[in-house]
Amino acid sequence: MHRTKIKVAEDALDANTTIAHANRADFDRDGVAVVNLMSAPGAGKTTLLERALADRGETRVGVLEGDVQGSLDADRLSALHIPVVQLNTDGGFGGECHLDANMVRSAIPDLTLSEIDLLVIENVGNLVCPAEFRVGEDAKAMVCSVTEGEDKPLKYPLMFRTCEVVVVNKIDLLAHLDFDLDLLLHNIDAVNPGVRVLQTSARTGEGVDAFREWLLAVGKESPVAA
Amino acid sequence: MHRTKIKVAEDALDANTTIAHANRADFDRDGVAVVNLMSAPGAGKTTLLERALADRGETRVGVLEGDVQGSLDADRLSALHIPVVQLNTDGGFGGECHLDANMVRSAIPDLTLSEIDLLVIENVGNLVCPAEFRVGEDAKAMVCSVTEGEDKPLKYPLMFRTCEVVVVNKIDLLAHLDFDLDLLLHNIDAVNPGVRVLQTSARTGEGVDAFREWLLAVGKESPVAA
Repeated sequence: MHRTKIKVAEDALDANTTIAHANRADFDRDGVAVVNLMSAPGAGKTTLLERALADRGETRVGVLEGDVQGSLDADRLSALHIPVVQLNTDGGFGGECHLDANMVRSAIPDLTLSEIDLLVIENVGNLVCPAEFRVGEDAKAMVCSVTEGEDKPLKYPLMFRTCEVVVVNKIDLLAHLDFDLDLLLHNIDAVNPGVRVLQTSARTGEGVDAFREWLLAVGKESPVAA
Repeated sequence: MHRTKIKVAEDALDANTTIAHANRADFDRDGVAVVNLMSAPGAGKTTLLERALADRGETRVGVLEGDVQGSLDADRLSALHIPVVQLNTDGGFGGECHLDANMVRSAIPDLTLSEIDLLVIENVGNLVCPAEFRVGEDAKAMVCSVTEGEDKPLKYPLMFRTCEVVVVNKIDLLAHLDFDLDLLLHNIDAVNPGVRVLQTSARTGEGVDAFREWLLAVGKESPVAA
């Protein structure tokens, strides 16, 4: 009996990956570097971006804001006079808990990619699902607040593992917490050995320079537009 | 032409609701009251439970711990000498971001319902999806940390709306934050008018008595076992 060997192209079966590649192609066409910024709710992503992007030099930055509902963060970032597009995920009953490649794709027409060098995607506040969906980004980064406890890398390992940079934020509160910073750093390194860790206080500005430098360096490494 | 009128029984089409009802029937059979406790990662659910359940009087309490991975919280609560069952959601790529009725159902055989009066389900840390899945509970409660910012009720309205009690935790840190407690309370009331709000510090113990009283009262209202 004749048998046909079927090669299952697993990646091609994953619609999210296919769409992420299409997004990537669009970003590359206009030389846009993309950072997917993730965290638990209230870890300080928006405040960190406000601080970091206030001094962005020549880099033309745009932001895509992912939220279940509302545009509070987009309104805050618009004050920096940068293009901000709001993406709400509450089409369903309670709202999607993450951005996926298709949602990002739906926002691309509003982004005017030819006018930006660096796109920061501020994902929905959640330590689980956002890490599971590629959206076409160059780099993933996460913000982890010291108020969340030392155990989070062990409880949400994929999020910590998938990021190139882990920003440990709210370090101005360390004196007021029963918190072992060394234990957090140990736990981060246990799930993602050697990952770059930055310590910041978006509130006081401490350490924000290093985050800004990293962010803008991603922007500079972006492919040159054709 | 003869037309048959078809009544779509929407609830019956939802497998989660069907299974939640089956869970409820099992809980009722043994007179077990069930609280579904939710929050963002690191809001302090486990510390609050440690404090509250240390003094539980005659009420026989059991805990079902939902985590993507690991059993850190279950290990902590086991020290209280109460039955704790760990439910990990990491069967998939990155893990499920919530407990659903079917996951809770899978844990029921390990719970020995006849030996407890009150079951506390500590859900996965996430402000979106846990609010969307009924698991057969009597009451939903959430913990919201003041470190997360005043805007969370507006950004995650379903979570705040679906709960009977909102516990505002970490109030010992208020002096060290740029945080407007009145604005948070206003925003909570805006999405869930009249909802009961408790202010606690699981770290210092302030306000924990009121949470304990609420929790144990749910336990006492549980149906009498047949």
